[in-house]
Amino acid sequence: MREFDLLQHVFAANSGLPGTVIIGPGDDMGAVHVGEAEVLVTVDQIADGVHFRLADTPIAKIGRKAITRNLSDVAAMGALPVGAVAAVCLPRHWGEGHAEALFDALRGAAAAYACPLFGGDIAMWDSPLLISVTILARTGGVPALLRRGARVGDVVCVTGQLGGSLEPCGGRLQHLDFEPRLRVARALACAPNYRPHAMIDISDGLGRDLGHICRASGVAAELDARALPVSPAAIALAQRTGTPAWRHALADGEDYELCFTVGPEAPLPAAIEGVAITKVGVVTAAPTDERRALVSIRTPEDSWQAADSGGWEHTG
Amino acid sequence: MREFDLLQHVFAANSGLPGTVIIGPGDDMGAVHVGEAEVLVTVDQIADGVHFRLADTPIAKIGRKAITRNLSDVAAMGALPVGAVAAVCLPRHWGEGHAEALFDALRGAAAAYACPLFGGDIAMWDSPLLISVTILARTGGVPALLRRGARVGDVVCVTGQLGGSLEPCGGRLQHLDFEPRLRVARALACAPNYRPHAMIDISDGLGRDLGHICRASGVAAELDARALPVSPAAIALAQRTGTPAWRHALADGEDYELCFTVGPEAPLPAAIEGVAITKVGVVTAAPTDERRALVSIRTPEDSWQAADSGGWEHTG
Repeated sequence: MREFDLLQHVFAANSGLPGTVIIGPGDDMGAVHVGEAEVLVTVDQIADGVHFRLADTPIAKIGRKAITRNLSDVAAMGALPVGAVAAVCLPRHWGEGHAEALFDALRGAAAAYACPLFGGDIAMWDSPLLISVTILARTGGVPALLRRGARVGDVVCVTGQLGGSLEPCGGRLQHLDFEPRLRVARALACAPNYRPHAMIDISDGLGRDLGHICRASGVAAELDARALPVSPAAIALAQRTGTPAWRHALADGEDYELCFTVGPEAPLPAAIEGVAITKVGVVTAAPTDERRALVSIRTPEDSWQAADSGGWEHTG
Repeated sequence: MREFDLLQHVFAANSGLPGTVIIGPGDDMGAVHVGEAEVLVTVDQIADGVHFRLADTPIAKIGRKAITRNLSDVAAMGALPVGAVAAVCLPRHWGEGHAEALFDALRGAAAAYACPLFGGDIAMWDSPLLISVTILARTGGVPALLRRGARVGDVVCVTGQLGGSLEPCGGRLQHLDFEPRLRVARALACAPNYRPHAMIDISDGLGRDLGHICRASGVAAELDARALPVSPAAIALAQRTGTPAWRHALADGEDYELCFTVGPEAPLPAAIEGVAITKVGVVTAAPTDERRALVSIRTPEDSWQAADSGGWEHTG
């Protein structure tokens, strides 16, 4: 059973949610009314052996990732972070110094994005390190950007460069060192004439995450492999593995860039807040045959392939 | 290193929190401003082998406890639940039926307390089941009840009966089957003439949790062992172990009742919403000698003993 299938399944009974719930399960964040305010919430967890390897990773980077992964969800909604709480299970053999370093990293990363860590829970146990972070955010006057809303004819865009997030390159590892795209996302959400119709952050791989947009929006999409902004890490990885770099850009996951769709006439700049914006495909009508892929990609050899099922999933 | 010491330590660097944080780490819930609204947040986790034993516990009860434990924190603030999100690590060998039963239980328990489950994250891994729940709440027009605020001369009160939460009794187990004291707490928070000065829920044991109130309030407290409302489970347990029942009531933990302090003249009813209210002690001045206990108890034999360090802590 894959995680996404399971999520779909367990959250299927969504229809019974009361009117205070503005956004239910199935988007990058949920949202509820608290009095007059709309509060966005996301929860995400990282575990040793699944999302990082404690033996190979500095504690400071683990703590940072636990926060920035959730901030990438805040970015996906075009929202503004408000605060974070963390629940942590520490290996019983950890000393105070380790625990302190981890919480310094959590607190520091949160504070760096104006998202104060204001609560938490700690347990000690005989299993691997696990960090679960919940972040609250606010819309700040513009509606949240959802996965649903993509329209036939939209162009599909991504921020930054994709692929090879687990490949060391230039002294960094994208899956640990990425910058959550809060500022780009906010600029997009507030843009008068190129506000996206739908947006998601790329954690499972462009193909699969665009598939989530398509499913939520009732559309399909076609990507152009030659248009993908391939990262230097993906190029290095391709040289090592023999797999074409565009495939890494399509499917590796943990890029934590944004994928969004916007009207074909929208006057999108080439970069926002110093981050490149690249058109990588178009939104098409949903296939009438449900066995057909929602996302297809035109390879450099001009053949078409399904692209929304080859994505990356935590397998550790 | 004990969990509470560790929590104290890692959250010591609280002073740098921005003005949007209304309640920082160290109370039953934190609170932040989201626009004009005050949003209360608590996160709590339960793990197989630490807070329950999967082999002995129906999945439905585990899911319920993950929710009700956090609702007990909402009660401790006198607040109203708004919604919940859950992060779950499932053992990899679990089938879909297990996962479904767990989420049904989480969703059902949350819905039963007007606290819809509106988001979550699922991972599968090779370690024990772990459920982390975050609950949002609102103050609904009355200030949250904090741990600080107890005054010298206050009486110390508890709801319900205490002790033996792990002892099967009358077909139930308090630590799984408890009713979070949301209605009693709300009635107390809204009471015009007996609103508590300080409140906490009893999860670590009355002695230790009253110690948290004392530490936060800069006071001390004296309990009377003969006044403690001892539960039938504590009496049954005492017969088996030979330890006096009042000691179980003082220190067992996981009662999920409320402990609060209120002015000595407050016209407290004997029961609120059908739940007994019992006066068990008084608030005194903080000791000048910091080696002295913050909470002491007068035994049935009229000797005094320290009571805030003998509490229960997860040791599994």
